[in-house]
Amino acid sequence: MSPLREDGFLGGRLRIAQPVRGYRAGADAVMLAAACPARAGESVLELGCGAGVAMLCLALRVPGIALSGLEVQAEYADLARRNAAANGIPARIHEGDLTEMPAELRAVAFDHVIANPPYFTAGTTAPETGRGLARHEVTPMAAWIDAALRRLRPGGGLTLIQRADRLDAILSGLERRAGAITILPVVARAGRDAGRVIVRARKGARGPLRLLSPFVMHENLSHSADAEDLTPAAQAVLREAAAL
Amino acid sequence: MSPLREDGFLGGRLRIAQPVRGYRAGADAVMLAAACPARAGESVLELGCGAGVAMLCLALRVPGIALSGLEVQAEYADLARRNAAANGIPARIHEGDLTEMPAELRAVAFDHVIANPPYFTAGTTAPETGRGLARHEVTPMAAWIDAALRRLRPGGGLTLIQRADRLDAILSGLERRAGAITILPVVARAGRDAGRVIVRARKGARGPLRLLSPFVMHENLSHSADAEDLTPAAQAVLREAAAL
Repeated sequence: MSPLREDGFLGGRLRIAQPVRGYRAGADAVMLAAACPARAGESVLELGCGAGVAMLCLALRVPGIALSGLEVQAEYADLARRNAAANGIPARIHEGDLTEMPAELRAVAFDHVIANPPYFTAGTTAPETGRGLARHEVTPMAAWIDAALRRLRPGGGLTLIQRADRLDAILSGLERRAGAITILPVVARAGRDAGRVIVRARKGARGPLRLLSPFVMHENLSHSADAEDLTPAAQAVLREAAAL
Repeated sequence: MSPLREDGFLGGRLRIAQPVRGYRAGADAVMLAAACPARAGESVLELGCGAGVAMLCLALRVPGIALSGLEVQAEYADLARRNAAANGIPARIHEGDLTEMPAELRAVAFDHVIANPPYFTAGTTAPETGRGLARHEVTPMAAWIDAALRRLRPGGGLTLIQRADRLDAILSGLERRAGAITILPVVARAGRDAGRVIVRARKGARGPLRLLSPFVMHENLSHSADAEDLTPAAQAVLREAAAL
């Protein structure tokens, strides 16, 4: 793993050590946390938690949740443990592969599962080791969704963020096993194609699918070099830990 | 079938006789036509063409296409023939069930298939006969998509309009058989959930899925009783036969 650097999230309220190179969590992890409707007292599992950004953002917004994380790469799992401790957030981080779920996790039915499955498909490669494993689609989308649904209690909520062009694979994985699906398109600027989708679903539910109005990250003005062209809604999520 | 009334479409350029009660085509059929990328010289099949509104709107925008329609209800098939003739548009209308495709259609590989499958699922009923059959989901979504894909040449284009909450069923039907999928959410007003989706796909293609920016039908001001709160884009499609 390359040298670490500490990044601030949620307006600096969360300090996260991440490798300078390789896989680094960013706005997508924060968006994922903002979209999970967990409440105090509920249990949340993050699959593929990396350095822990999404789960720790969620704990900061919703104190009193019981956090678990699963991470296949030992160095990232260790980093997630250290980041949780450094931010004073209790969390159990398990090292393991989601296709061979650790026994301690298999014994639990969670209220919520969150995940940001890797974005690159098997055709692409990434040189850095950490990045390679985190972004390479070693584990197919169907396996992520299957693992998530297995770990949820009946009626429990799955929240995923993913590249918009994987929407078909996500819905395919949810078919006949989850309902009350909501799809939130995330767009860089108004009028653009969705770059990401945040998909929520409830295990075993039968409610209708909803396709929501897009969430717009940046103002539709000229692009500025600093990040201050975030829309007010995006600022609220990324800087002030607002819920989606 | 209840008494007929003549409705104007595309700014009155198309005159369509429809029953006063029962299934009546409206803006969705016009949107479907606008979304089909057919060009002069190409062949187009509409599955479940009803009184022919969508296919005839398309022919009016793109002269020189070879139109075929399939309609299970004899009275509507007859109406579609009469509407085509009354508007001077050549079209072959076949009476039959898409799950038992007529032999003349089975012999053809089309450049485009369009469809507006019925909106109501099997739990709901509609009293009027015409409406009952047209809107009742007697034929499952998978059968519509299967029939459409079978009737397309390789690389041919499927264009569907449907309730947004059926997006999962649509993508499921397309899985592994079509690609280059684009999803256009159609919303009543900006910021609302999508009411409809227009899904385009190409048979056997492998291009990535795109989730487009929503098409907004009405201005976001106070709702007015007349239809003049249409957005300029919606006016262009509904009144001026613009392409989507």
